[in-house]
Amino acid sequence: MTTYIFGHTIPDTDSIVGSISLSYLKNQLGEDCIPTRQGEPNPETAWILNKFGFEAPELKTSYAGENVYLIDFMESSQSPDDIEEANILGIVDHHKLGDLKTNAPLEMWVRPVGCSNTIVKEMFDHYNVEIPKNLAGMMMCAILSDTVIFKSPTCTKADTKACKELAQIAGIEDYKALGMEMFIVKSNVLNATPRELVLRDFKDFNMNGNKIGVGQLEVVDLSVFDTMKEDLFAAMKALKEEGGRHTVLLLLTDIMQEGSQLLVLSDEPEKIENAFDVKLAEDQVWLKGVMSRKKQIIPFLEKQF
Amino acid sequence: MTTYIFGHTIPDTDSIVGSISLSYLKNQLGEDCIPTRQGEPNPETAWILNKFGFEAPELKTSYAGENVYLIDFMESSQSPDDIEEANILGIVDHHKLGDLKTNAPLEMWVRPVGCSNTIVKEMFDHYNVEIPKNLAGMMMCAILSDTVIFKSPTCTKADTKACKELAQIAGIEDYKALGMEMFIVKSNVLNATPRELVLRDFKDFNMNGNKIGVGQLEVVDLSVFDTMKEDLFAAMKALKEEGGRHTVLLLLTDIMQEGSQLLVLSDEPEKIENAFDVKLAEDQVWLKGVMSRKKQIIPFLEKQF
Repeated sequence: MTTYIFGHTIPDTDSIVGSISLSYLKNQLGEDCIPTRQGEPNPETAWILNKFGFEAPELKTSYAGENVYLIDFMESSQSPDDIEEANILGIVDHHKLGDLKTNAPLEMWVRPVGCSNTIVKEMFDHYNVEIPKNLAGMMMCAILSDTVIFKSPTCTKADTKACKELAQIAGIEDYKALGMEMFIVKSNVLNATPRELVLRDFKDFNMNGNKIGVGQLEVVDLSVFDTMKEDLFAAMKALKEEGGRHTVLLLLTDIMQEGSQLLVLSDEPEKIENAFDVKLAEDQVWLKGVMSRKKQIIPFLEKQF
Repeated sequence: MTTYIFGHTIPDTDSIVGSISLSYLKNQLGEDCIPTRQGEPNPETAWILNKFGFEAPELKTSYAGENVYLIDFMESSQSPDDIEEANILGIVDHHKLGDLKTNAPLEMWVRPVGCSNTIVKEMFDHYNVEIPKNLAGMMMCAILSDTVIFKSPTCTKADTKACKELAQIAGIEDYKALGMEMFIVKSNVLNATPRELVLRDFKDFNMNGNKIGVGQLEVVDLSVFDTMKEDLFAAMKALKEEGGRHTVLLLLTDIMQEGSQLLVLSDEPEKIENAFDVKLAEDQVWLKGVMSRKKQIIPFLEKQF
C-alpha cells in the first residue's frame, strides 16, 4: 500500500521539499511512498523546484483510509480535515509536540532544529543512502529558507552542518549568495493580492479553544509594505471573520534589519501586548530581533491563552 | 541544568533500564542527565539490576520546573501529576502518539518496535558510542522482557537484531535461556498481595474521557492463578472504585501457551465483549494468541470508546 508524504496546509519550501526528499529516501529503503501537497507552492518554492528541475508534488487534500507520513507539522489545525481517518505511520518534524494522536505505534524523527530537511539529511546519513545532486540542492535551499540564511534564532549547529554538506553534494560553492537570491524572489510581493500575501505562509493554532492564525512574510526590505498596510489589514479582517478566528497576526520580517513589524487584529489585543510586553500603535508594533514565529511568537502567545 | 530521564508510573524493566541506558548515552554525549523512576522496580527488574550490578535509579515523582526526558511513554495518564509544569526536552518511545504536549520544539526518537531499549541501542549506534558490557546485558534483558523472548506480536526484526548485538557485547551466548530464567522470576507471584499483583504492570488510559486501567501479568504457567482469581477480582474492584475508573482489566498472559486470560470489571462490559468479539463467562475470557496489551488490547478498546 502506498504511503503519502506531505507537509502542512499552505505549504512552505520545507514542507514541499521535505515531502520530495523523504519520499525519495523511503523509496530507496524499499517503501512505496509518493510526495503530495495540501496547497499551492509559494513563489519561493516554485523558483526552487524550477531551478533544480523538479515537478511540484501532486495536490491531495483528503487522506481518509490512507497510509500517511507527515513532514514539518504535528498539529491538527495544519492537517487535512480527515486526518483522524488516516493511518499516520510516521512524522518528521521540528516543532513542538502538538495535538495529533494515533491509534498505533508510529515512527517519529523530531529534533529541535531549524528545518525538517536537516532531519531528513540526518536520516539519509543514518541509513547510509546517497543524496542525488539536485535533491541536495533543494534540501539546502529549504534549510536556508527556514533558518533565514542562518540568521533565525531557530538555527542550530546541526542546520549549518547539514546545509554545508548538502551544498558540497550539490556542487554549490556560494550557498549564501544563492540564499539571498532566493529571498529576493521571496520579497517580490507586488504580483500578489493582499489576501494571497497574508495566506502565503499562514498557520492556524488552537490555543485553549481559541483559533489563532499567524502569517509571516520575510523580505529583504520592509519598505515594500509601506503603501500596502491598509490592504493587508483588510485581508486580515476578512480572514478573521470567515474563519471564526480569535486573532489574526501578520509578521512582516525584515531579514536585513533582523526584526519584524507585527500587525494585530484580535478580540483581546491586550493579550498580544502582554505576550510581547509592548504597546500597539495603530494595531502594529516593531519587534526587534524577532524573526521566528515558532520560537519567538507562538510560545509567548500560548502563555497568554 | 540537570535533565531527569524517567519512564512511566509503575515502571517496568524497559522503563527502568531505559532511564539508565539513555542517561549513560547522554552523559557520554556531554549532557548532564540523571535516571529517575516514578515507582518501585518490579521483581523482574530488581533481579536484572542485581544481576548486572546496577542500583535502582532514584525515586522522584515531582518534576515541576525541571528539564525532563521521557522514555517508554507519552501519555499524561502515565506521567507525574505535575508534568505540565516540566520542560520536556525529549521522548524515546515505542507507543502510539499520546496526549502529551509541549510549548517548545523537542527531540523525539519514536519507532514502532517492541522495546524502547531497541531504540536506545539505535541511538548508541547513531552517535557511535560504545555500550559497556553490563549495560548491554541489561538492555538485552529489557528487549527479551518487552518482546516476551521474541514471541510477542510487537517484536520486530529491529528488536531481534538489537538483542543479538547486545548479547554479543555482553558476552552472553544463550540469551534465550537467560530470558526464560527472567520470566520464571517474573512468574513468582506467591510473595505478593493480590493488589500488588494487579498493580505490578498497570497502565491507565484516557479513552474519550473514561479512565481505563489495564494490568498485565506474564507467567510461564497460568495455573498459578487458579486459586487466586477471587482475590484478584477483589483487588481490581477496589482499584476501580478508588480511581473512579470506568473499567479495570487484568491480562493474565501465559507465555508458553501464547495467550491471555482476560479478567473484566467494567461499567459497560458489553464494550469489552464487542472489542474482542467474545462473550464473558464469570467476567473472564481466554484470548488465544493475545500477548500484547499495546497491540492486541488497547487499539480495540479505543475503537469502542
